[in-house]
Formats: sequence, C-alpha cells, structure tokens
Amino acid sequence: METIRISTPSSHSEIICGDSAFENFTREFDGQNAFVVTDGNVFSLYGDLLQKSLPKAEIFVIKAGESSKNHRVLLSILQGMVNAKLTKKSRVIAFGGGVVGDIGGLAASLYMRGVELVQIPTTLLSQVDSSVGGKTAVDMCGVKNVIGTFYQPARVIVDPLFLGTLPKRELRCGLGEIIKYGALDGEILQKIAQNSKNLFDFGFLKGVTPLCIKHKARVVAMDERDENGARKSLNLGHTTGHAFELTYKRRSHGEYVLIGMFYELFIACNNGVCAGDYADKLRSLIMRALGKIPALDEVSAAKYDKKNSEQSKISLVVPKREGEWAEITLNFDEYASQIKRCAQLIRGEK
Amino acid sequence: METIRISTPSSHSEIICGDSAFENFTREFDGQNAFVVTDGNVFSLYGDLLQKSLPKAEIFVIKAGESSKNHRVLLSILQGMVNAKLTKKSRVIAFGGGVVGDIGGLAASLYMRGVELVQIPTTLLSQVDSSVGGKTAVDMCGVKNVIGTFYQPARVIVDPLFLGTLPKRELRCGLGEIIKYGALDGEILQKIAQNSKNLFDFGFLKGVTPLCIKHKARVVAMDERDENGARKSLNLGHTTGHAFELTYKRRSHGEYVLIGMFYELFIACNNGVCAGDYADKLRSLIMRALGKIPALDEVSAAKYDKKNSEQSKISLVVPKREGEWAEITLNFDEYASQIKRCAQLIRGEK
Repeated sequence: METIRISTPSSHSEIICGDSAFENFTREFDGQNAFVVTDGNVFSLYGDLLQKSLPKAEIFVIKAGESSKNHRVLLSILQGMVNAKLTKKSRVIAFGGGVVGDIGGLAASLYMRGVELVQIPTTLLSQVDSSVGGKTAVDMCGVKNVIGTFYQPARVIVDPLFLGTLPKRELRCGLGEIIKYGALDGEILQKIAQNSKNLFDFGFLKGVTPLCIKHKARVVAMDERDENGARKSLNLGHTTGHAFELTYKRRSHGEYVLIGMFYELFIACNNGVCAGDYADKLRSLIMRALGKIPALDEVSAAKYDKKNSEQSKISLVVPKREGEWAEITLNFDEYASQIKRCAQLIRGEK
Repeated sequence: METIRISTPSSHSEIICGDSAFENFTREFDGQNAFVVTDGNVFSLYGDLLQKSLPKAEIFVIKAGESSKNHRVLLSILQGMVNAKLTKKSRVIAFGGGVVGDIGGLAASLYMRGVELVQIPTTLLSQVDSSVGGKTAVDMCGVKNVIGTFYQPARVIVDPLFLGTLPKRELRCGLGEIIKYGALDGEILQKIAQNSKNLFDFGFLKGVTPLCIKHKARVVAMDERDENGARKSLNLGHTTGHAFELTYKRRSHGEYVLIGMFYELFIACNNGVCAGDYADKLRSLIMRALGKIPALDEVSAAKYDKKNSEQSKISLVVPKREGEWAEITLNFDEYASQIKRCAQLIRGEK
C-alpha cells in the first residue's frame, strides 16, 4: 500500500492505493454517521461486502449508467441526505465508478456547504483518474459537467480488489485515461509500451495506477481550479471525445477519450505539432486498447464545451513529443473540417 | 467610497461601499457576457436602471420572497444560464436582497464549477451582512440553507442608493443584523447607542454599514469555512431566530433574528453569562428596532439546524459583555424550557 498526498490552498487529500486498502479503511471505521452513494451494478456485486464492512452506514443506490449523472438524481441524493438527517460531521462515501464519484462528490460538497468526502472508486477509470483531484459534476440540458464544484475528497481508497469483476469494456475505458497519462508523462508511456501486449493484465494495471495518480496529484497541486493552465493538460483527447460522446452516445466515456485522442493526434500531426513516429506509437497503443477506430464526424457539441470560453474557437491539448504536450487553437470550422478529413481517411476515402 | 478587502486561502473579494458605487461599477462595464439574477420586486423598482446601466446583460427574474430560496428555483436559474450559453468567462451578478444573493451566488459557484460573481445587494440586510463572506445556500425539505457552497464574490457593490425604496420593515430586518454586530463589536454598539432614537435614519445606516462589513470581513478572513469557531460568532441570535422562522413563518429573517437575540439574551442572563444591565442595553435597542416582542415557544426546528452537529444539544452564541461573546451548550429540553419560560414572561404569566 502506498499513500499519495495532495495539498491545495483549500484542503488536503490522501490517496491510499494498493491491496487491502478497502479492508484497512473499514477496519478502523464501521460506517457510523456515514452515507454511502453507490449504483445498482456495484451494489449487486458488492452490496454484501459493503453492508458487512460498514454495518452502520446508510446506503443510497442510484441507477447505474451515465444517464444518472444529472440534476434530478443529484436532488434525489440530497433529499436522501436531508431525510437521513446527516449533520456537518457526517461523512459521505462515493462507492462506485466515475458517475457515482462525480455525483456523490457534488452532493457531499453541497450538503451543509460541504461534509467530509471519501471516494472509493471501483472502476479502473475512476481509480486512475476521476476519483482524484476534486472535480465533481452533473450534466444538464445536454451539456456535460456543466453543474459542479471543486471539492477535494479527504481520502481516496484505491483497491485493486474491485477490478476483478470489471468487464473488458470497463478496463478499456480506464485504459483511455492511462494512455492519456502516457501521452503526458514519459515514465508512464514507457511502462505502457513495455506492456503493450498485455494492457488488460491486472499486474500491469495495478502497477500503472499509482503512477497515473501521482501524475495527476502533481498537476492538481499546481492548479486545483483549472486557472493557470496546468490542469488543462488533463483534457488531452477530451474535447473531441466529449463532443462524440454527446452526439453518438453508444460507447462509454473512456472509449470516446481513446477515439478523441486518435482524432486529435491527426490534427496535431496535420498542424505540425506532433511528429509522425511519435503519433504512430500513441496510435498503436490506442488501437491495442480500443480495437478498430470508428469513423465519426459530428463535433458541433464541442462549441458548447465549457473548456472553450469562445464558441467559435476550439482549444485542444495534444501530444507534442514524449512527456510534452502543446495547445492548439483552431476556428471551429477548421477544426470540424480536420475531424471530417480524419473520418474520411478511416473510412478509406481519399 | 471605500474599498474593503477580504483575502481567504481560496480567493480575494473586494467590497466597494458608498454613494455612486453602482454608477462607478456600470461606468466601466456594460453587461457584456453577464447574467443578472434579480427578483420581481427589485426588477419593478430598478429594472429600467438595470437595463440602462447594463444594456448587454441577460436578466433573469425570480419570484420575490423567501419561498424562492429552494432547489427548484436554483435549477431554473441554472437552466437559464445553460440556455444563455454562458461560458467560464461569463459573470453572474446577483442584484437584490438576501434570497437573490444566496441563490444567485450558489448558481454562480456551480455553473462550470464557478464563474465570476458580483453581488449588488439592494436591501439593508444584504448590504450589512449576507452579500459579504461567500456563504451561498438554498433550503430543502424545510431545512434552512441545507444545500450551499462557500464561494467568495469577486466584488460586492454596496450603494446606499437602493435603501431609499425600502419599506420600514426591510430596514428593521437589516437592523437585526446591525444590532447583532453591535453585540459582537464595541465600536459598532457605541455608534448604535448614540443613534438609538434614529435607528431608521439613512445617515446613521450609511455610516454603520461599512463598520459591520469590516467586522464581518475580519471574521471571514480568519475562518472562511466555519471551521475554527470564529465565524460561529456571526450566528448570534440565529439559532433561535431560525427555529422561530421555520415554525411561525410570518415575519422576515431579520425580524426573527431580533426576536432570537431577545430570547437568547434571556438564556444568557439565566445561565450567568451576561450581566443584566448589559442585556438591558441590548434589549432596549432590539425593542427600538422591532417594537413589541412576540411570545413564541416552539423551537423544535433548532434540533435540525445545521449548526448543531448533535441533535440533542443546542449551541448558542450569546453576548457576554461589550465586544465579547460566549458559547452556551444546552440539552435540547433545557433549551426549550428556557425559551418557554421567556415566552411566559413576555405574556405576563408568572
């Protein structure tokens, strides 16, 4: 087990990472005055363990899936917290994947202006990325993450125990973020490249997870509130990924991040920012994780992405060379036409 | 005009206070990319001025009154912000009294995890107290301020211009908080005592407002998030006031604060914390502001006040001697019985 710390101007966060992290946490805490937010899938797999480990906790189960990440479900959780008569000394535990972490974290940040939050991520994606850093959010009126807060969890419990029940698609999702970290951090890229043939093996995933968390912890400590540009790097692949996700809706967030990175690599090369051989290296890892890349070309939703303060301009963070990234800003029309061109090439059109 | 600054670990806030503060603000800003939250009353009085002063701003009008301070109205504002396609660089202006400031501030803190907030308080209560300090909130399921954030406004524009149209009852509301500051701060108490016969005069109110804001600014800088106890002092009169407000609902917040202070003074004397002559001085100011004190005795709602982390105990901040306060903690039953006793005395029962 390993403890990674993040100190920001507003708080301190401790990420406890490794085998038995969950067991250790519940050994010292029985769930007294705690409110657990989880989803139906996670509860069906780990409900018994949860009730046995945190016998005194109140458990609130939301419907599994991205469609739960909205203001109506947020309100139902907050109402549940009011009904449970939680106090300022209560603790909220978000036990699940990215959706549970985002919405449970937001609820914890809002209840009585903030109660202690513990994140227990159960998917690979939330373990390597979303449970760390204090971003919480729900979607509204079709705009992703438009309602949210910055709110650091007091603790994050990252236990590989939960990876065992994840379907391959969920691992692929997490690999989307892991490869993103590879594109930002040479040490992580090396580890991924060394394991390119066994990206789905638990040994590799367990080893790479703390590296991704450490990278993110460094970035968050520099730029908790997305103000000075450092944190922007973590959006690599996400602008295009989010736009596809909103339009096509069939795949999961992490898969669209992989697809978004693929398309943005095309733009990076096209604009002379990224060399072809480095782009090829990243592309081959993306394809190892995802398989065939689909031809998608509708990106209008990117105009309303909150990362863009001007709707006519699109800002992308793209890989430059090993361990380095760059920012490209394009007019929306130029951006959309480069995405179209990439889709044509994927389809085999000239 | 006077500028008062608050620096907290998470942000900086500037309070610009005095004649022409509003005009100066709108001279340098035309409302471009701004979203104004206001209420029907304020809009009927100042809608023309607002549209003339901030011609490019989008204006969102909520129903006037405490009943608007809930999660449904919050959602309608957030939806309005999404529909207006605000970006991270947009600015939210809360133009109105305490309800508009609380709900507009909360919306600003949540939209894209926080956009710039300007508070323009138009009531005496919001000018001397609620617009400063960054507490935002709405009520839910009958629990006051149970959903909220700490979010500092970048600027607060405190202009006496708006006091001219306030009914006497609204001035009385503000006097509730002003007398509270008097009970915490000897300099303010002296100023109030010197003007005890003209508490409703604008000259006095204009002069005492910056003193109250400075007191609050000092407390907020020490304890932004209500963590180390300093900020708790600002709740003087509020525990009982809130409990009455939730039960009886007829009067406004500031009036219940005056009433709450009166009852809590009784408890303070009863428990030997506050000397009788000092209590008499405060009581006479309360009665000058409010008139006759009503006999009220239902305080069960205090059990669910978020200031109390244990439901069976009630914590009160009460005046001790000039410029000093103390905290009293009572079992709920003891507290309720002392409130009952005070109501009996008011009714003239033995």
